[in-house]
Parts: sequence; C-alpha cells; structure tokens
Amino acid sequence: MTELDQAVKARECLASKIFDELRDGTHDGLGITRPSYGEGEQFAHALIGEHAQSLGLQVECDSAGNTFMVLPGANREAPAVIVGSHLDSVARGGNFDGAAGVIAGLVATAALQDADVVPERDVRVMAIRGEEGEWFGVPYIGSRSALGTLPGYTLDEAKRVDSNITLYEHMIQCGCDPDAIRGGQISLPPASQYACIEVHIEQGPVLEGASIPVGLVTGIRGNSRLLNARILGEYSHCGGVPRANRRDVVVAVAEFIGSLDSIWTQCEADNQDFAFTVGKLFTDTDHHALSKISGDVRFTLDMRSLDGDFLDTMESRAAELAEDIGRRHNVVFELGQFLRAEPGVLSPKIREELLTGINSLGIRSMELGSGASHDAAAFAAAGIPTAMLFIRNANGSHNPREDMALSDFTEATRVLAWWLAHCV
Amino acid sequence: MTELDQAVKARECLASKIFDELRDGTHDGLGITRPSYGEGEQFAHALIGEHAQSLGLQVECDSAGNTFMVLPGANREAPAVIVGSHLDSVARGGNFDGAAGVIAGLVATAALQDADVVPERDVRVMAIRGEEGEWFGVPYIGSRSALGTLPGYTLDEAKRVDSNITLYEHMIQCGCDPDAIRGGQISLPPASQYACIEVHIEQGPVLEGASIPVGLVTGIRGNSRLLNARILGEYSHCGGVPRANRRDVVVAVAEFIGSLDSIWTQCEADNQDFAFTVGKLFTDTDHHALSKISGDVRFTLDMRSLDGDFLDTMESRAAELAEDIGRRHNVVFELGQFLRAEPGVLSPKIREELLTGINSLGIRSMELGSGASHDAAAFAAAGIPTAMLFIRNANGSHNPREDMALSDFTEATRVLAWWLAHCV
Repeated sequence: MTELDQAVKARECLASKIFDELRDGTHDGLGITRPSYGEGEQFAHALIGEHAQSLGLQVECDSAGNTFMVLPGANREAPAVIVGSHLDSVARGGNFDGAAGVIAGLVATAALQDADVVPERDVRVMAIRGEEGEWFGVPYIGSRSALGTLPGYTLDEAKRVDSNITLYEHMIQCGCDPDAIRGGQISLPPASQYACIEVHIEQGPVLEGASIPVGLVTGIRGNSRLLNARILGEYSHCGGVPRANRRDVVVAVAEFIGSLDSIWTQCEADNQDFAFTVGKLFTDTDHHALSKISGDVRFTLDMRSLDGDFLDTMESRAAELAEDIGRRHNVVFELGQFLRAEPGVLSPKIREELLTGINSLGIRSMELGSGASHDAAAFAAAGIPTAMLFIRNANGSHNPREDMALSDFTEATRVLAWWLAHCV
Repeated sequence: MTELDQAVKARECLASKIFDELRDGTHDGLGITRPSYGEGEQFAHALIGEHAQSLGLQVECDSAGNTFMVLPGANREAPAVIVGSHLDSVARGGNFDGAAGVIAGLVATAALQDADVVPERDVRVMAIRGEEGEWFGVPYIGSRSALGTLPGYTLDEAKRVDSNITLYEHMIQCGCDPDAIRGGQISLPPASQYACIEVHIEQGPVLEGASIPVGLVTGIRGNSRLLNARILGEYSHCGGVPRANRRDVVVAVAEFIGSLDSIWTQCEADNQDFAFTVGKLFTDTDHHALSKISGDVRFTLDMRSLDGDFLDTMESRAAELAEDIGRRHNVVFELGQFLRAEPGVLSPKIREELLTGINSLGIRSMELGSGASHDAAAFAAAGIPTAMLFIRNANGSHNPREDMALSDFTEATRVLAWWLAHCV
C-alpha cells in the first residue's frame, strides 16, 4: 500500500491550501472565530464543501447543517464509516481545533482515489456543526442532532451567548431545518453506522512534551458545567463594616475555588481522574469599586473526568460547598443547572487496528486520554464503535497560538488512510 | 446655651433643603455621583458656597479648590478651628457620605449667628475636594493639598480612573491653581490651626446596631491599597492540560484571597485590628471563556488597620504570598505599588470636651473606631488636634441606599455647635 501512503504525502499541499483559505476567511484580527451556527462556521462549511466537490465526493447536508462528503465504497448498502470533526471554533481560537479532522478526512479520501483504492464501505467525511459549548452552552449540537440524541428543548432554550438568539433561529438563518430535527429526522441512525473516527489536535502538551507526533486516544473526559453561576451578597464600605456583618462574595468565591482545588489534590492522591476550571470570574463593573465590599460576582465552572459517576459526585459536592460557604459568609450562591456531557468510551478494537497501521507505517505514537471533550464522545455514547487520533500541537488550543506542524498532520492522515484501506 | 441648642434644631429645615438640592443636582439615575475634581463635585461646591453666602459667611477658595466658609471669631488673629468634610462621592454612592459634615458646619455656624454667639476664634467651615480614593487612586487630595502634605508628583502621575486625565488637568478644568500647589502654597499651615473637627456618617452598622445616634471616634484606620494588581499565567484548554502544566491565574488569586482571609482570622484571635477587601476582581472579557484556563486576572486590594506598623507587616506578607503562590502555580503576580494612608490618631482632649457636651445635651453616644478613612486622618497626621463625630446611618455607605435620619444629623450638629460655643 506504499502507493496510498505516497498519495497521502502528495496531498499535503492540498491540506496546506485549505488550512490557509480557512484561516484567511475566518480571521478576526487576533485569532480565528467560527461561531456555532454563525458566519465563520458557514464560511468553513461552504469552503470544505467546494473542495470536496472538486475531489469528486458526493456532498450532502442534513437538517442540522452538518456537511457529509461521501466516497462511495464497493458495497454501498453496508454500514458506512464516519470520518468527522467540527468546523466551528471558540472566539479568537486557533485554526486547527476541529478543522484538522475534517481536512484529514478530505485528504485521506483524495489519496484513496489517487491510489485507486476502493474501500469496502462508504466513507462519509463529516464536517460537524456546533461542537464548541461556549456559544450555546451546549456541546455536540451537530453530532447529537444527526444521531438523534440532542434534547429537543435545546432548540428553543439554548441561546447563543453573543446574540442572545435561540439555536432554532440561528439554524434557520443558516439554512437548516430545525423543525425536521424536532420531528425526529436523524441523518445517522446509530445502528446503521459501522464506525466513527475523529482526528483532532491534542489540546494539551503531552505529545509535544514526549516528542511524539500521533496519539491514540484511550477515552474522552465527560464534563459538567455551570455557565452562569453567581453569588449575591451585599455591597458595603470596605473599612466600616465589622467582619461578622460583611457579606463579601469575593471571599466566598475564593473559598469555593480553593475548596475545589483541595478536592483535586485529593483526587490526584486517589488516582481519580478530575480537572476543574473557573474560566470566567468577574465582579460587576457597574458597581464594584476599590473601597467597596463586592455584593455580586459571576463565574463559570467546568469539571471534567473520565468517570461519569465521579462527575455526579462532584456536582453534589459543589452544591454542598456552595450551601456551606453561603451560610458561613451570609451570601447566596445561584449555581444554576449543571450541563452534562458524558465521558466517551472508545473502541479498543479500532484502537488496536490503528496501532497496527501506525506500526506498519513506522510512525511513533503513544496512548493518552483526552481531557478535552469531542464529538467522538457523542458517537461513542450513541453506541457507535469510535476511535480518535490526536495530532501533536504546541501552545494548547482555544487560543490563536495553537501550532500544529503540517508534517504531523500528514502522519495522522497516513494512519487514517491506512485504516480506511485496510479495516473498513 | 439653650438658645443655641434651639437655634440648631430650628435650622434642621435648612439642612434638609441643602441635602435635597445636593441630591437633585448630582443624581445619576441609581445613586449620586460627585467625582473628585469633576462635574458633581463642582456643583456641590457652588451650591454650598451660595448657601454660605446667604448665611453671611465669608466664602473663599484655595488653590486646590477647597471652599472655606468663615464665621469670624472674637479674636481674628488666634488660630482658627476647622470644621470640615468632603463633597465628592464614589460613583453611584449616597448623598450623605462627606456632605453631612459640611452641612453640619454650615448649620452650626448659622445657629451660632442666630443665637448671637461669637466664638473666641474664627470657625472655618471647609468643604474639601477629592477625598474618595477611587477616582485618582489617591485619597485626601484636597485636605493634603491645603496642609502641604500631598506628594508633589501626584499632580502629574495620578490620573482619574474614568477620564485617564491627570489630576493637574482636572484641577485646571475646575479653576484651581495646581502650579501654586506645586510651588508650595498652602492654605492651612498646620502650626496655625487650633483644631479640626469632622462630622461624618458612620459607614458601618455599629451605631445602628446599638440604637445610638452619635458616635465619638477614637481613631481612624489607615489603609494600604493596590489599585491595579494583576496575575499573568497562560490561557489554555481547560481539559487537555495536565495539572502540573496549568498556569491558572484564577486558582492563584483564590489562594491569595483565601490566605489573606486566614491571616484575618488569626488577627481576630490576636486582637489585632485588620480588614481587607478585594472589591474588584475580573478575568479579561476579551479572552476568557468557559472552557479556557484563564491567563490574566486583575484585582484591587484594600487593607486597613488602626496600626500603621501592622500595615507595613501586611504589605510584606502580601508580597511574600504573591511570590510563593506565583512560584507554585507558575504565574506572575504584578502587584504594583502599595498606596498608603496612615492611621489617624485623634485628640483625647477634644473627644473629652465633646463628651462633656454630649452629656450636658442629654444625647446618647458611644465610642468607636473608624474603619473607613477620612480627611480627619490627614489633619491628624499633620499634627493638628483632630476629632470626629459619627452619625448613625443604615445600609452602609458608598451605595445609594445609605440612610441617615435628619434627626440624628441634628443631634450631631447640636454637639458640634455646643463645642464651638464652649471650647473654641
């Protein structure tokens, strides 16, 4: 299969061109911004669809706006394989998070054609909508719509953080058909899918630290999130109020965060997978002052674990902490609802097949867990055998400085193409 | 002296009228706003000056824009007594913080005239500029300019937080003469002042809790402040980065605040006067996100104590905490300079005289320390025998809900007038 492998390498310039066009079209001055069901995402889907058409793939969209680019297999009736990732991004994010997996799919199918390899099954390269939870407070919108696992109320209740307009309205604006989704139309009945594979940049420094280009993902952390938690106390003069009378939300939130950090320390001692992040934290700019005890603070909370039961435990513990700290500081925590994404259990069989390919191609790899969440978790949760490949990436993700070497991208795409040729 | 006491009570309606005019002229929709060397403060000085003129007082301004309203005494060469407080306010503050002391001075001098009482010395009612540190990050601008104790560089280095324009420019805009201040012109040579008395609302709940209308202040807390502290870490993905690689400024600031709170608990056990407040705390709205470890957080810090040496200690301990926490979390604290206001040591002699008056008038009072800072601290620091009277006030201060009963204001003004008649 050296011919296929050569074909992948020869298509590196195509990948480079698409990455560049994608960056140019969605650059925001600082990084790139492709909001879920927004302008940048629309641009990306149109661009990818055009390239797919040039490559001779069949391009289709489903009612949630996911773009499918199909390379027909020998047996068109057999369950297909999905090769997908998302095209949306966080605000001021990087160009590779998500897009790399879609472009890897395009390049792999191009190489299969170049090398005249016809896979046994259809290969459906899927550009997924709405993966980034920061826009609607809900992750995996496109993939879960396709799989029929997106809770129906999400369409009307989830509003985009920047526009305050519902997901339903944003879908309409993007030419999607949310009523069909509501009516139960699904484009990927889980039982008729053979497998799903997602290629994605690593969002941490593990591969970079180990100088290894490709990672085999063992599992995907689930998360439990608070989108708009708040603590209400009382504004008062910073010097004149005795300590017992203070209702200081800043001291309360510091204790809440400190307590979660202590729990994390305990988790490490117990070998219990966990991470938490308070990404946003702010007193009210309309009322806060140097010499005022603050009466209002807002924050977000993201808790992650490979262990879904432990996320249950942590939701309870966070609520207990809020109750206890609130009582002692005479402040009121309004945590709101925890939004949950379950951990993704990946297929050991596909992982083993991928490892066989990696070894036969002479690529260096390692196994690692995914701390970040991915559409792959939604496919896995729906019962589809799912795997993920990570590409080494410097400077983390969700920032403009994310940095994936094109040569590493090609290594992962070689593995993907090998697997499509040998195992599908 | 029943006639004088009657005269004070009869002037309650004048006080009410001035408070109302002041509120009407500086209301901002939510509370009142009289920025230091800004529009609302200008309005207040003009209004108070007009009332003083109607009362037959001599009205003068100094080069820092402080308004002096003079009731001539029997011996015009003798060192005068200053009765003063400030007319500026925090943004969206209350109507009584500061203004009550100026209006008490006006009412007391009106009553002295009504009752034909001529004090031995000139009584100089002083409406002070720029007391609230939140505007220029520097407290006591007017009083310290008058006393010659404002550091000269303040004129060019202090910029107002809302305009980003220097104190020098704001003074010019208000018709003041900052060059004269720079040249060493002072309107209140400390050695030629007999005494200073400041009437002010209590900014805590102590008098309210004890159901006592008037407080005798034993001392004024000094403060040490950070106006724009910052912690720099690194933005990265909340799930993908191992704990050891995180550079999370939110966890770092929580630990910093929690550590200061633990020190405060120890202080209470040791009977060491202390308070600290982080009034502003915010991640960067341009970059923070639910799913990002935050790489930048800003905050303010206000530490207070009646004990100046302990403030020295706390500046060192805060710097040590920043160093230690910064090292452990791989983040950089940029605390900036501590800005200091020394504690105010008040005159036991005047306090005793005031207590004699309080007792002879049959008013209920108690002694208490001032947690808030006041211009009186600047007069005391300059060596002028200084005293303060607190007026009971509900709902704290620096907020629109501060609530002083006019009858309590009159009680304090009765004490002030008694003291001017008997002890000046």
